Amino acid sequence: MKIAIDAMGGDFAPLETVLGALEAVRETKHIDVVLVGDETQINKILEDNNEINNPRVTVHHASEVIGMDEHPGQALRKKKDASVVVATALVRSKVCDAVIAPGSTGAAVAAALFGLGRIKGIDRPVIATPMPTVNGITVMLDSGANSNSKPKHLVQGALMGSEYAKLLLGKENPTVGLLNIGEEATKGNEVVLATYPILEKMKTINFKGNVEGRDIPKGAVDVVVCDGFVGNVVLKFAEGLVTSLTQLIKDSIMGGSIFAKIGAMLIKPALKPIAKKLDHTESGGAPLLGVNGVFMISHGSSKAKEIKTAIKIATDLVERKIIEQIRQTVEIEGAVKYEYDE
Amino acid sequence: MKIAIDAMGGDFAPLETVLGALEAVRETKHIDVVLVGDETQINKILEDNNEINNPRVTVHHASEVIGMDEHPGQALRKKKDASVVVATALVRSKVCDAVIAPGSTGAAVAAALFGLGRIKGIDRPVIATPMPTVNGITVMLDSGANSNSKPKHLVQGALMGSEYAKLLLGKENPTVGLLNIGEEATKGNEVVLATYPILEKMKTINFKGNVEGRDIPKGAVDVVVCDGFVGNVVLKFAEGLVTSLTQLIKDSIMGGSIFAKIGAMLIKPALKPIAKKLDHTESGGAPLLGVNGVFMISHGSSKAKEIKTAIKIATDLVERKIIEQIRQTVEIEGAVKYEYDE
Repeated sequence: MKIAIDAMGGDFAPLETVLGALEAVRETKHIDVVLVGDETQINKILEDNNEINNPRVTVHHASEVIGMDEHPGQALRKKKDASVVVATALVRSKVCDAVIAPGSTGAAVAAALFGLGRIKGIDRPVIATPMPTVNGITVMLDSGANSNSKPKHLVQGALMGSEYAKLLLGKENPTVGLLNIGEEATKGNEVVLATYPILEKMKTINFKGNVEGRDIPKGAVDVVVCDGFVGNVVLKFAEGLVTSLTQLIKDSIMGGSIFAKIGAMLIKPALKPIAKKLDHTESGGAPLLGVNGVFMISHGSSKAKEIKTAIKIATDLVERKIIEQIRQTVEIEGAVKYEYDE
Repeated sequence: MKIAIDAMGGDFAPLETVLGALEAVRETKHIDVVLVGDETQINKILEDNNEINNPRVTVHHASEVIGMDEHPGQALRKKKDASVVVATALVRSKVCDAVIAPGSTGAAVAAALFGLGRIKGIDRPVIATPMPTVNGITVMLDSGANSNSKPKHLVQGALMGSEYAKLLLGKENPTVGLLNIGEEATKGNEVVLATYPILEKMKTINFKGNVEGRDIPKGAVDVVVCDGFVGNVVLKFAEGLVTSLTQLIKDSIMGGSIFAKIGAMLIKPALKPIAKKLDHTESGGAPLLGVNGVFMISHGSSKAKEIKTAIKIATDLVERKIIEQIRQTVEIEGAVKYEYDE
């Protein structure tokens, strides 16, 4: 198994991306890595870590980097030798089995689309983000690849999300909910109203009807299907709310009595598992589903631990043939596809 | 000042609605209430509370109620004597100055639209929900009245939300942000992309550009403008996340050591202000802006305290002439309106 890593992607590249890759190599026997980016910088880090001669760690030079604030389409046209583009090409040419792309989500999606192409029957790829809930993990998709989804895009998302949840959650028949503003099938905007009856008819998913915003943190379903605009807003809102609440609580304790400060110290160990649950670096990022290859998008703020986790998830997805699974499911649902495609 | 209350609305009606109205009367000198609904039930509660002869408390009989799970449009056509319809009619006929409507949001919006009509220049009314943030309150709108907003609806929402924030937050020039999936003006779905340049040109609002989901709990702007589908999902997600987090923390403490339990007791007083901040009954509900009259929508789960707060906010909005303010602003922005209306 060989994983290509855009070593220049993200706020702490290349140091943290390289360190994360090295950790993945050390902790496993079967994962080799190809570090794509500025070879001088990468080699320096490998030397510092005494890994320059490790045969399982290869450096593949790429002379350019796409920054967080560049326009993805324009950057891709201009920078043919960008690290994320070169890493993707290594999967296309079958040198590598999967890509890890930290940094600009827009650039990653564009590189994957142009480099790998879409799976036949899938119109737009989606980002499938695992969200912590009271009783485990819920996969929310799309969380930002498409912000103008039509019913067919949501339907394809439901199909792919369901396949991903089978692998990630180890559930045979994961439940799928359509994110809406009410439980009834007659509620919602034009897009979800048209999506509901198609999801109901599908053979390969376990559709449970509409879910509301409050059902996501409850873990009411395994897969939440929504448009990328809504998903992205909710995801960032969740991050912001957790950060803000933590800040409010800290401020209250610091401004509180000595008893409050002692209380905070005593309570801390009990709260550690929750903090861990809410820590997005635990998740490793989110796969882009619907392209012809395993492609993980990691946070721009990724540190070594997150990169390592992303590499392991990507390896798992390759081994369990997620792309094949999606292809087969698309084939089974073919009839539905044509019906809603008109 | 006379406030009409749909005494039959919500899960705890008529007991809690009547008790809330009585509290508002007791705590003020200038607020009279008209309790609309089943007079036998309401009179019984007034008798039990020795308020049956209070001249500031009137009962107006209405023989029907619209339930939480009824289709708003259908219910409104069938139930001409529904309490929410009759309460709204009392404002239309100028017997009362404002309506308090707990219970079904859909029925409330429909009753307000048909009963009061829209302010000239406003195509669709919006629900403006005050959300607690790290540094105060942010008004989010629309939070559920329209789930297929076009640019003009978002623009009108920005205008009305800004006027509301002036009164609610006491700020002369409240900041307005457009909820989006990135900061740049070139990001987002078709609707927000078309909305951005119009907001930029407006004379009566202090537009600060796009805000992302994470900016809402930070309190980055005073007014967050979005489509009702997105707003509703975010609002319910926030409620769900706070509930789930609280549950997780309680479970961790109960399952934790004796030190964790002592710590929780010590820390509690310092966290009280935060719990209060997050308690939606503190807000009293949200006004429906854009109809010809002050109309407050309260939670279906409203208890007396929330009803009382809603009555006080409604009174404030009447005294500070919110409807007049919106009319004037619409007039100033007239040119913009025609430009985007085409």
